[in-house]
Amino acid sequence: MMLYLNKTIQMKKQLSLITFALLTVLITENTSAQNDTAMFKKIYNEVMSRSTSYANLDYLSNKIGGRLSGSPQAQKAVDWAYKAMKEAGADTVYLQECMVPHWVRGEKEVGQAMSPNTKEVKNLSICALGGSIGTPDVGVNAKIVEVKSYDELAKLGKKNIEGKIVFFNQPMDPTIYQTMHAYGKAVAFRWGGAAEAAKYGAVAVVVRSCTHALDDNPHTGVMGYKDDVVKIPACAVSTLGAEWLSKSLKGDNDMKFHLKMNCQMFPDEKSYNVIGEIKGTGKANEYIVVGGHLDAWDNGDGAHDDGAGIVQSIEVIRAYKTLGLKPKRTIRAVAFMNEENGGRGGDKYAEMAKKNKENHIAAIESDAGGFSPRGFSSEMNMQQKTKLKSWAPLFLPYGVYDFSQTGGGSDIDPLNEELGTPLIGLVPDGQRYFDYHHTAIDKFESVNKRELELGAAAMSALIWMLSEYGL
Amino acid sequence: MMLYLNKTIQMKKQLSLITFALLTVLITENTSAQNDTAMFKKIYNEVMSRSTSYANLDYLSNKIGGRLSGSPQAQKAVDWAYKAMKEAGADTVYLQECMVPHWVRGEKEVGQAMSPNTKEVKNLSICALGGSIGTPDVGVNAKIVEVKSYDELAKLGKKNIEGKIVFFNQPMDPTIYQTMHAYGKAVAFRWGGAAEAAKYGAVAVVVRSCTHALDDNPHTGVMGYKDDVVKIPACAVSTLGAEWLSKSLKGDNDMKFHLKMNCQMFPDEKSYNVIGEIKGTGKANEYIVVGGHLDAWDNGDGAHDDGAGIVQSIEVIRAYKTLGLKPKRTIRAVAFMNEENGGRGGDKYAEMAKKNKENHIAAIESDAGGFSPRGFSSEMNMQQKTKLKSWAPLFLPYGVYDFSQTGGGSDIDPLNEELGTPLIGLVPDGQRYFDYHHTAIDKFESVNKRELELGAAAMSALIWMLSEYGL
Repeated sequence: MMLYLNKTIQMKKQLSLITFALLTVLITENTSAQNDTAMFKKIYNEVMSRSTSYANLDYLSNKIGGRLSGSPQAQKAVDWAYKAMKEAGADTVYLQECMVPHWVRGEKEVGQAMSPNTKEVKNLSICALGGSIGTPDVGVNAKIVEVKSYDELAKLGKKNIEGKIVFFNQPMDPTIYQTMHAYGKAVAFRWGGAAEAAKYGAVAVVVRSCTHALDDNPHTGVMGYKDDVVKIPACAVSTLGAEWLSKSLKGDNDMKFHLKMNCQMFPDEKSYNVIGEIKGTGKANEYIVVGGHLDAWDNGDGAHDDGAGIVQSIEVIRAYKTLGLKPKRTIRAVAFMNEENGGRGGDKYAEMAKKNKENHIAAIESDAGGFSPRGFSSEMNMQQKTKLKSWAPLFLPYGVYDFSQTGGGSDIDPLNEELGTPLIGLVPDGQRYFDYHHTAIDKFESVNKRELELGAAAMSALIWMLSEYGL
Repeated sequence: MMLYLNKTIQMKKQLSLITFALLTVLITENTSAQNDTAMFKKIYNEVMSRSTSYANLDYLSNKIGGRLSGSPQAQKAVDWAYKAMKEAGADTVYLQECMVPHWVRGEKEVGQAMSPNTKEVKNLSICALGGSIGTPDVGVNAKIVEVKSYDELAKLGKKNIEGKIVFFNQPMDPTIYQTMHAYGKAVAFRWGGAAEAAKYGAVAVVVRSCTHALDDNPHTGVMGYKDDVVKIPACAVSTLGAEWLSKSLKGDNDMKFHLKMNCQMFPDEKSYNVIGEIKGTGKANEYIVVGGHLDAWDNGDGAHDDGAGIVQSIEVIRAYKTLGLKPKRTIRAVAFMNEENGGRGGDKYAEMAKKNKENHIAAIESDAGGFSPRGFSSEMNMQQKTKLKSWAPLFLPYGVYDFSQTGGGSDIDPLNEELGTPLIGLVPDGQRYFDYHHTAIDKFESVNKRELELGAAAMSALIWMLSEYGL
């Protein structure tokens, strides 16, 4: 009996110990979840009420504008970003030197379709693709041939292509919900069309702009040559222009095209990444990067691509300093240089991080426009992905629900390649992005203040979780 | 042994019967889920590739424009919607008569702040609130007093308010993620401010526009009087105007305000709901309504509010007829009249549905702008909600994830009240909606083609599920 009682008491004790332990876990977890919820509210309230990101974007877009690597505007943007990070309250701000390509568009490009039959001349809205060589002063004048794929090009072969201009007219697929994926398919011709067509003796290429919109804005963007293939000039034509050209070619096989561009590649220039830090309070040697790219194509103001990512990253610093938050890990806002036509800033950052043996626990990039955020993509192992996804309920009240996509961002990719750093990308609503992307209408007015701020708030909140709990 | 064997065989038989039944259920469910997934893809592909909704919106916005109930433009919109539903291929199209209020804005309103000290006169961007009485020809000229709440108004009381103009200056709360909720709080002053201020002897009210944007567009919208309170003129001032006024009043207690409006209420006019049907193939006597409202405020083109809902509803008809889909239940696209200032069309529709003893199994409304869809709100019992939410996985690949919100839509609310019809509302991203809502910039250009189409596709897909499986 005594034994039994003792046992019972012992069991009761054990049970209450287990209960206590369980309760402690539950309470701790609950308290921690409550604290995180409260912290999210605090961060979101601050950003949505007092963010300077929209005013910063106004300055960057309207006072500096397009800022292609190596241009005077890019240097202005570096100076401005340095100042803006200081004003945001970063503990330290510094520049990280890197050499960047220096391509210059030159005079306004001319693209004219000419019918030898009707003698009609039609001006089309075109622009040189970034990195293209120019044409001779008299331009390139040749018959133009439409294709929709490389297969079609191969079928036409040298006898039908040699001496002609190839017109790649593959529209972006409207049935793919994720516009970024539709872009991924269509952009192949922009990047590689010139090298592919040159194999068959083409003298230039005209590529349909990568956008779902039917309008008269040509979309620039980087293209590439191959070492063993002759370089030919490459331009983008607006989608309305492409539609007109395609229709006209159906009735007129003799249509000629006149292309004139005096774009040019100059020697590399010195430029910089701009870095602003908040020093961590416990694990200061563990770094969390948040960034975007400071360079932008020259034809617009680069408000969405990627002024948004820059001002959002700076806003993380401002919000933390204003709220007096003390992150455990060190936060680095990085304005990367030269994403658009070289990726040299991203490479340099990873190179230096490796050289300095810095432990980067995560890197986040915002480079998909300043639109209403819907989620975070990621490039990391399954365990890390699981941890990241476990935070989803905290984000749901703010419309951030999609943690399923893969990818980080061009500027942070080298960190993953060099150091294995887990990558995260802000995923905003992508439906409108390719209306503006790399065009003259990528302007401040195309960015909505609240949508921009929600992106900054989402990244600030995520960084809190990363800083507190790691991955 | 024999018995045992028999039993075993029997058990085995039973087991295989159970297994077979289970497998049948699983296969049926799987096949059904696969079929639904394929149907979603089919519907989305059709709408995203060949929708006429954007072209329809262009016509409705740019050829007809603002179309307040009782106006000639509203009648044009009725005629157009009838034709558009026919062209979309509806089996039957007809008009449903209803009487609507007829309020006319009249000449451009004048709102001037005048400082008796400096003699400066400042023109502010204002507009009459819908339903307001006009001012005398000489205008209303009085001192102006700022308040942020009804409490503040009550504290000032009759002695400080009598004979003055009350300026309600409560900004929309930027920290509330759901802009519709922030609007719900702020709009109280637009609707009831005049009646409340008149109780204390105010002679007019100026209400800060309901928007987060800081710009010079005044936002109109309906206001109401109370039977036992004197009617005073009510206008909205742009947010920039409100900021200026508030700042100026801090330094100048003697600021006067001159308000001139000659808006007027005329006798009710005859108007119509426009209804287009696809007859169900099995349960034709069960109805699914999909609609928006055809009327729109007179100061803009009503592209988002609610041209979008109209052309999306017509698109449901077009997509179904083009694809040759045969829904079990009857689908009714309804272009409701008079949502903005009376709700008479919605009332009439419910009244007739009740009178004709029609069994409405669900009603869907799109009246929150033509933005990228994020979910469906609902107003129905828990069992129905559970069924609706069980379809969420089908929508997730198209960015439609939020089934948590409550509500249907103003035009379909009476169906719920009169007949208990389950209601569903399309929930698009709401961050930009109140930039345009009830202003001169609610124009075609502010609507993105893909975002508009995604809303039409989401409703078309949802209607397939409702038609096939009911709620």
